[in-house]
Amino acid sequence: MEIKSIVAEILKNKEETGGVKEVYFAACGGSNAALWPAKYMLEAESKSIRTGAWNANEFNYNPPAVYGENSVLVVASQKGDTPETVNAAKNARAKGVPVIGLTFAPQSELAKNCDYVLVYTFGPDKDIAGEKTVVALEIAAEFLHQAENWASYDKFMDGKAKIDGIVKKAQKMVEKRAEAFAQEYKDDSVIYTMASGAGYGAAYMESICIFMEMQWINSSTIHTGEYFHGPFEITDNNTAFMIQMSEGKTRFLDERALTFLKKYGKRFEVLDAKDLGLSTIDPAVVDYFNHSLFNNVYSVYNKHLAEARKHPLSTRRYMWKVQY
Amino acid sequence: MEIKSIVAEILKNKEETGGVKEVYFAACGGSNAALWPAKYMLEAESKSIRTGAWNANEFNYNPPAVYGENSVLVVASQKGDTPETVNAAKNARAKGVPVIGLTFAPQSELAKNCDYVLVYTFGPDKDIAGEKTVVALEIAAEFLHQAENWASYDKFMDGKAKIDGIVKKAQKMVEKRAEAFAQEYKDDSVIYTMASGAGYGAAYMESICIFMEMQWINSSTIHTGEYFHGPFEITDNNTAFMIQMSEGKTRFLDERALTFLKKYGKRFEVLDAKDLGLSTIDPAVVDYFNHSLFNNVYSVYNKHLAEARKHPLSTRRYMWKVQY
Repeated sequence: MEIKSIVAEILKNKEETGGVKEVYFAACGGSNAALWPAKYMLEAESKSIRTGAWNANEFNYNPPAVYGENSVLVVASQKGDTPETVNAAKNARAKGVPVIGLTFAPQSELAKNCDYVLVYTFGPDKDIAGEKTVVALEIAAEFLHQAENWASYDKFMDGKAKIDGIVKKAQKMVEKRAEAFAQEYKDDSVIYTMASGAGYGAAYMESICIFMEMQWINSSTIHTGEYFHGPFEITDNNTAFMIQMSEGKTRFLDERALTFLKKYGKRFEVLDAKDLGLSTIDPAVVDYFNHSLFNNVYSVYNKHLAEARKHPLSTRRYMWKVQY
Repeated sequence: MEIKSIVAEILKNKEETGGVKEVYFAACGGSNAALWPAKYMLEAESKSIRTGAWNANEFNYNPPAVYGENSVLVVASQKGDTPETVNAAKNARAKGVPVIGLTFAPQSELAKNCDYVLVYTFGPDKDIAGEKTVVALEIAAEFLHQAENWASYDKFMDGKAKIDGIVKKAQKMVEKRAEAFAQEYKDDSVIYTMASGAGYGAAYMESICIFMEMQWINSSTIHTGEYFHGPFEITDNNTAFMIQMSEGKTRFLDERALTFLKKYGKRFEVLDAKDLGLSTIDPAVVDYFNHSLFNNVYSVYNKHLAEARKHPLSTRRYMWKVQY
């Protein structure tokens, strides 16, 4: 079933009981981060729908009191076997809350427990317009469009049509920089990521899924607006940062942080959405595409970093190996 | 003006135009973290009010579309001079949005730009029931009570009456542990904090305001529910953690992370809300008091850590010293 039809059906089914008033997103780790732009877009744009992006287990143990009759749940899990996320889907169905599940594994436990299953694109050559983050964004866009006649819907769909081309070009553009980055930073034991706005999830994902999980490098995501209220004190000539210069409304926050880094730091890698071609997307919706750009550009860096460190991205000591 | 009367006045003023539909919180750094429990409580409990906790500058550059006629803004700044937060207050008043300002400086620029000013308690011997976080919680509680006849209001007020006694006892209880912690961890270059739920802000504050800002120690806050989806891979016999065992609905998440730390880690300091006496507060509202307990218990640790490291908590290289 297409996203447009899924949303239409849910809205129709809820008509008699007051409509859709909440759309919640729940997942874990990288999937949680991937849903962030959709949550951010609904939060920013919607006049009638409450939203929230939750770690699935926190959502299971402490869902909002309002979660129920007028709610919709969106969950995501790559292999469809994340127990906390499967439980979120089960709990939703027990409550009569429609669940849309995003996964790469249509036969999975998660898929079995969702009312609607969307299989996204994945892998090095994937169509970016069909990846997890964009699928989630499209769900949000359809709710905005069908429930509120959102003025920027066509602009969003135009952005969706452009994002694959932009990302593929950007990935080529950073190839050499990524190689140099890997040589420069391969022995660092701490690397910070920095970001703001709808693209923050990409920095969080890089920090927890790549640096910490796949490279065992200490890391944290610093919000560029929060940087000046604490974190900036760790800046010196040795501290390592990757900073996302987003395109859109919160770019000024990123620029301010970069200005400071240029003055008081020495070791920072800049990913600039303007420089990487995101600006052909309409300003009304460009914010929401930062994530897909940065997340897929990081992949180029990650490949080189793993090679330079002789630490394959598939290395784990605990995940899928021990009980937890 | 008392919180009760402020909220009553705002609700009355908004009656003709549809009531209060959004209560937003905006601040920077430690003040942002301090507002987290109030946002969390409204998010969890309210049936009619949307909420969000924002870095003030992100809020200034990208407020939700719905922000306006039916909104209320709560801001906070210790000295009342944080430019981003002052701007948030100014923008609100320009839009006709009532602003409640929390500060320790009633003559400040922030105070001048708020409709209502609440001066909170501060300092080593402060009454915890009057500190910034509890004042913000009380604002949220009054909205829940007056707008929705919240069933847990009396339990919340009872918790508020108890929190000062609990914290003062807990601070004495950890004195010796804090001394030992300082000796054990004084040479660490990375210390993680871990938390979940309504108390997450206390861990974030410890991480960005104390470790990073005041001690120049690398740090990050790991959500205990997210830990198993990436971050746990950095766990080994050397990695240093401070973990908050919260009291309330998300405690299971913290327990699960602690179980893992006990098996695969060696160096972690446990702050346990049960052990520290928080459980005399009613289970319906106990979650919201974790922040005040942990935040004030950290203070005891911070004092000893700063002494052991010979790095006073007042040391800064950039904050208030250079332009940024």
